[in-house]
Amino acid sequence: MIENPFYSHEFHGEYDLVSIGRLDLEEGGCIPDCQLAVTTWGELNAAKDNAILITTWYSGTHQIWRDVYVGPEHALNPDRYFIVAINQIGSGLSTSPHNADGANADLAMSNFPKVRIGDDVVAQERLLREHFGIERLQLVVGGSMGAQQTYEWAVRFPDKVLRAAPIAGTAQNTPHDYLFAQALNEQFWSDPGWNGGEYKSNADVVEGIKRHAHIFAVMGFSTEFWKQEVWRALEFDSKEAFLAGFLEPYFTVMDPNDLLAMAWKWQHGDVTRHTAGDLAGALGRITAKTFVMPINEDMFFPVRDCRAEQELIAGSELRVVEDVLGHLGLFGVAPTYMPQIDQHLGELLATEV
Amino acid sequence: MIENPFYSHEFHGEYDLVSIGRLDLEEGGCIPDCQLAVTTWGELNAAKDNAILITTWYSGTHQIWRDVYVGPEHALNPDRYFIVAINQIGSGLSTSPHNADGANADLAMSNFPKVRIGDDVVAQERLLREHFGIERLQLVVGGSMGAQQTYEWAVRFPDKVLRAAPIAGTAQNTPHDYLFAQALNEQFWSDPGWNGGEYKSNADVVEGIKRHAHIFAVMGFSTEFWKQEVWRALEFDSKEAFLAGFLEPYFTVMDPNDLLAMAWKWQHGDVTRHTAGDLAGALGRITAKTFVMPINEDMFFPVRDCRAEQELIAGSELRVVEDVLGHLGLFGVAPTYMPQIDQHLGELLATEV
Repeated sequence: MIENPFYSHEFHGEYDLVSIGRLDLEEGGCIPDCQLAVTTWGELNAAKDNAILITTWYSGTHQIWRDVYVGPEHALNPDRYFIVAINQIGSGLSTSPHNADGANADLAMSNFPKVRIGDDVVAQERLLREHFGIERLQLVVGGSMGAQQTYEWAVRFPDKVLRAAPIAGTAQNTPHDYLFAQALNEQFWSDPGWNGGEYKSNADVVEGIKRHAHIFAVMGFSTEFWKQEVWRALEFDSKEAFLAGFLEPYFTVMDPNDLLAMAWKWQHGDVTRHTAGDLAGALGRITAKTFVMPINEDMFFPVRDCRAEQELIAGSELRVVEDVLGHLGLFGVAPTYMPQIDQHLGELLATEV
Repeated sequence: MIENPFYSHEFHGEYDLVSIGRLDLEEGGCIPDCQLAVTTWGELNAAKDNAILITTWYSGTHQIWRDVYVGPEHALNPDRYFIVAINQIGSGLSTSPHNADGANADLAMSNFPKVRIGDDVVAQERLLREHFGIERLQLVVGGSMGAQQTYEWAVRFPDKVLRAAPIAGTAQNTPHDYLFAQALNEQFWSDPGWNGGEYKSNADVVEGIKRHAHIFAVMGFSTEFWKQEVWRALEFDSKEAFLAGFLEPYFTVMDPNDLLAMAWKWQHGDVTRHTAGDLAGALGRITAKTFVMPINEDMFFPVRDCRAEQELIAGSELRVVEDVLGHLGLFGVAPTYMPQIDQHLGELLATEV
């Protein structure tokens, strides 16, 4: 392991590290002591039937959900629900390459095993059941890689998921997304400081992380975001200042091995592993009331890819979120974003199931 | 200069190197002996009024036009027109960083000056006038950066351009395109073999060139190209084989300094340099009958960016080309591509002006 101060309570506020013990992995091997970083809001009722699960995206943690999505003024209302955010494996808060030590010491850095979306969901289900006694979820919701986990939950544990809201993500990763993630990954691997993944500090790979940020700038925001200079609303006075002052520092504090662990998961996300490649069969297993929520300007999870999956889910609805930011609309920067999210999630939660 | 066998008659067939003498540059400095690689088809008539100019795109040369676009079965018909393709400065065939020697020796490699789209168009106009005696063009047509040159022609020399067909490109480069090109450029600069641009062979930078190709894969083709596995039509059996067998070798033969010279031009293309930043004013200068021809699946010259410019050109028409390949539809791989191009260019050439 290496020290990285970003992955700490100082930068991520309150969360608990909960061990679920040994987690056997789909690709082989195991995490001997799988620890998941968990944040909750609200109170679990006596019947333990008012829980909502939030899953996290590539590079994201529970923090953005706390700051933007959860609150008494939102559909994700802790006055009504017990809301649990579980940071994904590799997130840097849960068991991850950079922090593997103790029983997990053999998994540190370049030795971290391949973890799949399904491994996360199995780990999350165990945590919810064993730690909280939760057997069913009113809602699973997540964006991007969180949408992948949401789909995996609904397909793998249909009886446990009453409602599902995958935002800006797909059930089966697309080849275009695979290539995009690979182009990001290559920025780390090509950095002279990479050292086969055995760098001493993420700062050794800072140039690669910056290039990674620059590619994210091209795909993560829409062409219109740049054309309309929406970054001016964030009080930057040039696109270069926005890159240097927002997108680069967002990523440069992070650990490249952690990002790579998540990227591999993202690239290989695929609910059809349950059905030997049959997408209609996999999505046909879903009994949750599902709102599929792509972002209209998303360049790597375009609406049509999400619609194609939505049409295979019985009783589902396509709820397109309008946001000129594109995929990174997920940050909730646009004042018009959260009202749409709250509208859709509010209607979904109000739906009898 | 360095040797690069790709930029030769062996790989590019017939072309003539025509010197237009000293070319003073908009950014300052000059090319002491500017040589342009020129290919022609057909015969210039006695009135010298049957000429068509083809401009070239980033990484492309006259070759793709010869192989795909020009012929008696096409609108660009050498039985009717005298068709001139002029390879842009930095193309590797015309004066470029890798081949600068003799009078241009001081411009070699990392010393190559900044060249603008306007410099190319001034050079092309001089060549056509002094070398061929051509004062007016029936049509200027080009794709991508060739579209930038087409727009520059129509704005700078409105009396000389009767018709214009910018395909898959814009008159004023967008900030998104700027960032995309920058992400490509950074792949070269970050290669340990880059050596400040003073590498001994493009092979020294091959890893950077491959990463450049991989980013092009994400933006150059559409999400649907990858989803529908259109590469199977090119007889590859995996997307990885397609990258390794098509897109990587397409770029790895090229010279990084040459690509960077073109990229800088692409990034700074802007017809409003003629009108102090006024786009409507610049496009209002155009008297050519103009067909603006974006490709519907283009991820970096999206239709809406092209439409916004088209609406500022008097008498122009928007002719959207449908091609699942996206921007690299320009290669003419889809059997449905050239019939659309021929239809539009045929109608344009048939329009009385």
